Amino acid sequence: MADVAARFAEVVGEHNLLSGAQVGEDYASDESLTCEPRKPAYVAKPATADEVAALLTAAAEHGVPVTARGSGTGLSGAARPREDGLLISFERMNAVLEVDVDNQVAVVQPGVTLAELDEKTAAAGLAYTVYPGELSASVGGNVSTNAGGMRAVKYGVTRHNVLGLQAVLPTGEILRTGGKTSKISTGYDLTQLIIGSEGTLALVTEVIVKLYPRLAHGATLLAPFGDLDQVMGAVPKIIASGLTPNILEYIDNLTMAAISYNEKLELGVPEEIKNATQAYLVVGLENRDGDRLDGDVERAGELLGELGATDVYVLDGGSARKLIEAREKAFWSAKAAGADDVIDVVVPRSEMPAFLARVRELATAAEGGALGCGHAGDGNVHMGIFCKDPERRRKLLHDIFAAGMAVGGAISGEHGIGQSRKEHYAELEDPAKLALLRRIKQAFDPQGILNPGTLFD
Amino acid sequence: MADVAARFAEVVGEHNLLSGAQVGEDYASDESLTCEPRKPAYVAKPATADEVAALLTAAAEHGVPVTARGSGTGLSGAARPREDGLLISFERMNAVLEVDVDNQVAVVQPGVTLAELDEKTAAAGLAYTVYPGELSASVGGNVSTNAGGMRAVKYGVTRHNVLGLQAVLPTGEILRTGGKTSKISTGYDLTQLIIGSEGTLALVTEVIVKLYPRLAHGATLLAPFGDLDQVMGAVPKIIASGLTPNILEYIDNLTMAAISYNEKLELGVPEEIKNATQAYLVVGLENRDGDRLDGDVERAGELLGELGATDVYVLDGGSARKLIEAREKAFWSAKAAGADDVIDVVVPRSEMPAFLARVRELATAAEGGALGCGHAGDGNVHMGIFCKDPERRRKLLHDIFAAGMAVGGAISGEHGIGQSRKEHYAELEDPAKLALLRRIKQAFDPQGILNPGTLFD
Repeated sequence: MADVAARFAEVVGEHNLLSGAQVGEDYASDESLTCEPRKPAYVAKPATADEVAALLTAAAEHGVPVTARGSGTGLSGAARPREDGLLISFERMNAVLEVDVDNQVAVVQPGVTLAELDEKTAAAGLAYTVYPGELSASVGGNVSTNAGGMRAVKYGVTRHNVLGLQAVLPTGEILRTGGKTSKISTGYDLTQLIIGSEGTLALVTEVIVKLYPRLAHGATLLAPFGDLDQVMGAVPKIIASGLTPNILEYIDNLTMAAISYNEKLELGVPEEIKNATQAYLVVGLENRDGDRLDGDVERAGELLGELGATDVYVLDGGSARKLIEAREKAFWSAKAAGADDVIDVVVPRSEMPAFLARVRELATAAEGGALGCGHAGDGNVHMGIFCKDPERRRKLLHDIFAAGMAVGGAISGEHGIGQSRKEHYAELEDPAKLALLRRIKQAFDPQGILNPGTLFD
Repeated sequence: MADVAARFAEVVGEHNLLSGAQVGEDYASDESLTCEPRKPAYVAKPATADEVAALLTAAAEHGVPVTARGSGTGLSGAARPREDGLLISFERMNAVLEVDVDNQVAVVQPGVTLAELDEKTAAAGLAYTVYPGELSASVGGNVSTNAGGMRAVKYGVTRHNVLGLQAVLPTGEILRTGGKTSKISTGYDLTQLIIGSEGTLALVTEVIVKLYPRLAHGATLLAPFGDLDQVMGAVPKIIASGLTPNILEYIDNLTMAAISYNEKLELGVPEEIKNATQAYLVVGLENRDGDRLDGDVERAGELLGELGATDVYVLDGGSARKLIEAREKAFWSAKAAGADDVIDVVVPRSEMPAFLARVRELATAAEGGALGCGHAGDGNVHMGIFCKDPERRRKLLHDIFAAGMAVGGAISGEHGIGQSRKEHYAELEDPAKLALLRRIKQAFDPQGILNPGTLFD
């Protein structure tokens, strides 16, 4: 093994290869609540696609498994390395290579954080619209899990905002897919195939992302409802209104209490209304024109009233920002509250009321709890699962995932399968489809060196 | 072979299996200008996914190649069958199964035409926004080539508007991919992999398409420019304005003359302006609110003037409809004018001026011509190629495709590779990428029975 370490060091330089005690705790896991940290044998920090290719070639020759890591903010364990493996950290490949105003795209390295991309695009009056709620997340990591977030209801998820990639195959070949255009019809779409593949098909070394004009005016409405079903019933009507919200979230009352407490949030909702509220709807609106935004806010307020909201609060800039930030930290609130797992089942939005009712039944039967919030416009339900007993929890998760899939949904809308969901995925997914995915995996990675144990065993 | 015919007939019924002289000319090709018609040995018209699966199973057992056909409006020969093959025509699988208002999706069979889907969704106040300019095209065919069209500048191409599929593998297995949700992060995205695969990976038997609210108010602006480069320079500015046009097309003066003549189009542009015009820009705007639309039309008019338009005409409903219809028929105008081929290279939109200048040089050097129009907002250039000599034309096309790819573009934005471009594709595409595509093909279709000779040999 000294031999392979020497090869890796030759590629990235001594200073950029860690092994043994040099490997810090941070490299041992992502933010998954259930995957035990596991330190890799090696951590390499390449600076170029050529270095990534050389690392993969060396790893393939020596049969060393390879896991990719962006910022490690994933929630499903896909960046958790193997003990006998090489972790490739993209922390040094963190440059915004270009913000191309005429084509409204940016070309970035995978280690670029969303915070930095936001800053660089803002300077050009543009925006990258994927905000999964953690600005320290890397673009490469987002590509790996097909990350989503609150603004997906208007702008789509990572998949809809990546136009091209540079990617390295496990064989060391460097490919370019897609480009600075939104349409290409020449062969199979490798860009889309690699997005969401959780580091099992290829390592992404460059990303072309789509940008939108940054709209000058925005507003956030908060609408408490006495009844969760009413909230869910309101969602399709708001979508159908043509108001095109850029945020459409629900937050159940307990989750709102938790995030308000943790983030010291005071939104001006009177106690008697809070007490009569089962869930809140948060509606974000934006426009390039201030008058038009005002008109939309008025119309949205009327509509929310018609749909059963107890009241409607138009939050001022500071409160709105705090609420959105607090909502983004719902994961941390759930973690702080002692959640045993966090899930993000997606179902058709019309199925949300029935699905949530079923989850409550299942959680009660398991003597556990399921609380949360979610991207209501997308049917993407984020929940903290409270159930200490591992066997009961395993069964509860299985039943929740099965209930989501039974109504045409999926285990995960944006977190991915990773290592934490693969057992349920293997049990619940169509075996013919799983066999096909394995054959596709084989087409990219015949030796199986890329992230073995993620997605499937 | 009598044996396999009997198997096919058993599956679909005697009346729905054609062979020999029963096979009409229509089944011999699509609308490609350069692929010679070629009648298949058999045409089967299944009514269900199970029948498609049984046909594929029988074809695989007997080693019979299989080509799928929607409406046959493709332009690259991907629906041109093999002489020894089975053509599966989806003409009987033509039902809109569901228009789901709450989830804003429709579930359709592949043989549904865009015209019918438009009618059914209009009744619900919704719209399927992919309009490749031929309303008799089928949704299945659109999925196969990842069809685009004029509204892609706002709504994207087929890829961006298909959320899920039912598809049959060559092994006879029936899979469901995606669903009535816009985000899923569980395994490789088979929906996106099958879209644009031109019938080489799987046969699509059901499609879940995304719908949008049908906006009540629309307007079309026509802006003549004295200089083609000015038109191209204007495009990024219009995109950046935030006016979100749903149409942004350029039409060169000769193409405008041809379509005006063929379609008896009178747009009220005075002769002296026509004579001083090198190209026109067509800008479509839409809004749910009439006043807002008026404001946008005014702003767009000012902007076009600032960007160098000689004048700006806001077309009334009838003229606007006629112009758009005429633009959609540009292919037929080119064909009527004796074009020897029609291409649709895509390049980053900022590269259009340089690319078009290069194409003019190449065409002149080949003693030929290249005229056209295109989806300017997408960088998708549609051109009639006039060059009688086959060898000179072959070289001209090669050089045009190479010039497009050299600036980060691709051979086709929406027509596909099919059979008519595969030679150039094989010459120009990265061999490592082609090898990977072949391995993916192998993962779906180990016997190679699905559309052999399309995309690659």
